[in-house]
Amino acid sequence: MINKDYQTQINSWIKENKVVGIELLQKLVRNRSIQTKEYDAQQVLISHLKKLNLEIDEWEVGGDIFTHPYFCSTRKNFLKSPNVVAVKRGSGNGKSIILNGHIDVVPEGDLTQWTDDPYSGKIEGGKMYGRGTTDMKGGTVSLLLAIQALKELGIELNGDVIFQSVIEEESGGAGTLGTLLRGYKADAAIIPEPTNMKIFPRQQGSMWFRLTIKGRSAHGGTRYEGVSAIEKSITVIQELQKLEKVRNARIVDPLYQNTPIPIPINLGIIKGGDWPSSVADEVTIEGRIGVAPDEEMNHAQEELEQSLKNLEEIDPWFKKQPVGLDWFGARWVPGTINEEHPLMGILHSKFQQVKQTEPMIEASPWGTDGGLLEKLGGIPVIVFGPGTTEIAHFPNEYIELEKIFEVAEIIALTLIDWCGVSS
Amino acid sequence: MINKDYQTQINSWIKENKVVGIELLQKLVRNRSIQTKEYDAQQVLISHLKKLNLEIDEWEVGGDIFTHPYFCSTRKNFLKSPNVVAVKRGSGNGKSIILNGHIDVVPEGDLTQWTDDPYSGKIEGGKMYGRGTTDMKGGTVSLLLAIQALKELGIELNGDVIFQSVIEEESGGAGTLGTLLRGYKADAAIIPEPTNMKIFPRQQGSMWFRLTIKGRSAHGGTRYEGVSAIEKSITVIQELQKLEKVRNARIVDPLYQNTPIPIPINLGIIKGGDWPSSVADEVTIEGRIGVAPDEEMNHAQEELEQSLKNLEEIDPWFKKQPVGLDWFGARWVPGTINEEHPLMGILHSKFQQVKQTEPMIEASPWGTDGGLLEKLGGIPVIVFGPGTTEIAHFPNEYIELEKIFEVAEIIALTLIDWCGVSS
Repeated sequence: MINKDYQTQINSWIKENKVVGIELLQKLVRNRSIQTKEYDAQQVLISHLKKLNLEIDEWEVGGDIFTHPYFCSTRKNFLKSPNVVAVKRGSGNGKSIILNGHIDVVPEGDLTQWTDDPYSGKIEGGKMYGRGTTDMKGGTVSLLLAIQALKELGIELNGDVIFQSVIEEESGGAGTLGTLLRGYKADAAIIPEPTNMKIFPRQQGSMWFRLTIKGRSAHGGTRYEGVSAIEKSITVIQELQKLEKVRNARIVDPLYQNTPIPIPINLGIIKGGDWPSSVADEVTIEGRIGVAPDEEMNHAQEELEQSLKNLEEIDPWFKKQPVGLDWFGARWVPGTINEEHPLMGILHSKFQQVKQTEPMIEASPWGTDGGLLEKLGGIPVIVFGPGTTEIAHFPNEYIELEKIFEVAEIIALTLIDWCGVSS
Repeated sequence: MINKDYQTQINSWIKENKVVGIELLQKLVRNRSIQTKEYDAQQVLISHLKKLNLEIDEWEVGGDIFTHPYFCSTRKNFLKSPNVVAVKRGSGNGKSIILNGHIDVVPEGDLTQWTDDPYSGKIEGGKMYGRGTTDMKGGTVSLLLAIQALKELGIELNGDVIFQSVIEEESGGAGTLGTLLRGYKADAAIIPEPTNMKIFPRQQGSMWFRLTIKGRSAHGGTRYEGVSAIEKSITVIQELQKLEKVRNARIVDPLYQNTPIPIPINLGIIKGGDWPSSVADEVTIEGRIGVAPDEEMNHAQEELEQSLKNLEEIDPWFKKQPVGLDWFGARWVPGTINEEHPLMGILHSKFQQVKQTEPMIEASPWGTDGGLLEKLGGIPVIVFGPGTTEIAHFPNEYIELEKIFEVAEIIALTLIDWCGVSS
């Protein structure tokens, strides 16, 4: 069978089975799988995986993971938060591949900004709405449609296909770290995070941090007797804005040329004070700093530390009360795949074949678990998926259903070329 | 008996009964009478008042108060939060006086900034430490020592002395409003809030407000796709800083000449965002705006509203998403007493007599319940007390015990002259 025929077959199988994907996605979205609540959504996947005759491995990460240098999580255990891996064994002598998606979603945020229930899975105008549609249950459905298409069309691959549905991607990668510690490796990996069908050979790293800015309390009516931690926070925020400019001015990689801020510093949470007419004596700010694909995590940390040190020159208050810095919670290791890597070539050509146009190749504006797979597992990773970044973590998150099917088709064809087919 | 003799008698009575005051203050401080928890501290007072043979009135405010135009509280009821008033009837034909203190204290804030338990009532170096010592349980103890001294020395006044221990001063004055609605009026009033023994014929008003600043959520890695409510908050804060400057530049009252910011705008609480790597879609800021003694509350409100309107010129974002403004929680009406009022003269001369020095006369840097007594009750009010403003609402709040006794002596002598004594 020539490639052209595979495409025709796969394309028609997917066309005929769109409902399978839509139903699965809706079931996944209706399960609010925020951190610690992943269990039910994973069970939805398991019952689907069983129909595909894969070797299913469901387990809670733990044990040695807590002391691993790459471990990063606020959690003390992962009870009732299982990882799921399902392997489709190849017939032999083919290259293996990991297809990795995460089941956890970020919280829905301010409900009043959502038009509907964030977990409705409502379909309208070719889109499905809901938290997690784009980031990244839609991508996971693309993977499973690709696997199912090959199975039902009787296309047997030489290499192993290792499907992974991991926890904790949004908060440090303990799920994917757990798959590596359990021995899951492969010759390459694809992660269908929401790239809007752009191909991302670069993966930005990132880390979470917590700043503690001290003031001195006083009665609001004599606020000049105190020191407002809220006012001091403005100085801190402005210094971090400067740091972001300096760090981004250095990024010359052409893959970032369409990205307004390649490696952003995002301040996501602010909280301080406890009485309207008292001077706030403490403010905490939690945020994330982007790490360039070729940058060491340490280097980004040191630059942020230096920025906080610079504050002492701007305002002597910070000499007396240095800003507290805590690297907590989530961390995503950066990564990069050689643009000449064979998987890049295959994915590129399958995209052209299906879409009849050139793919856009860019660098990822956010971290994924791909950095861990590459840095710790030595596995080259491409991020390529159906959702759109702009919608991830947003109210009224949605995904265009058609993109899920296109990505499924491209990935199925990529698997054929990468893993090989016995003739 | 001539005045000189009253002073000698009162001075020695207080010297001999310092322990009475210290014990009472410590008992009051050890009861953490933050909003809704005032009951136990009021019971401490009641058992003390019983020994002084006063007519005691203990009641929970309610009924019509909730629809009164001056009512201002977040509370839906005041169950278990009684007001206490105790009247010492005069023998007749004298001027009456209200002696008003509040039993509520502001929360203790960040515990790590306190050297000891905030409710220890620890005594060291002539000071008692604890939340509420200075604001204003110390002042209340001065009042009760003055009343007890007169009683035990057999000095009978012509006019009524109406002692009040009210709730809710820190959050809108519903306690003092309740005393007015219950019919308590007098020819004048003294409130021993912490003036550091300065005499305050002016009372700053103030109001609480809540600002809601909208952003638009996005993934932190593509934060340029969202709008950070935290960044927008900086613009809002800076605009309010400008407004504070403009409003204070207008204050020419010489009584404010030693006050760096006569009518401050204090931003006490900030809160926004719910995920470190998401763009914050909403920030709320809660604060208080000072109202000049001769200013209408409405005028201050309108100026703040105009400032928020000005934001639309600075950043078009605010045209699309105007900052929400909510006048909530506490409100203190401003007030002013004529400096030629006879009570001013009496207090002035009694201060000189006891302290052998001139009193400082200034304008209050914060609101008190005095504004309500004046505006609604038509009662001229002087604020004069033993604590220090700088320490109010602070960690490690304390009061110099000696000041409590000095104020008690000055007030006892003032009562004699104001209410009159039958010869």
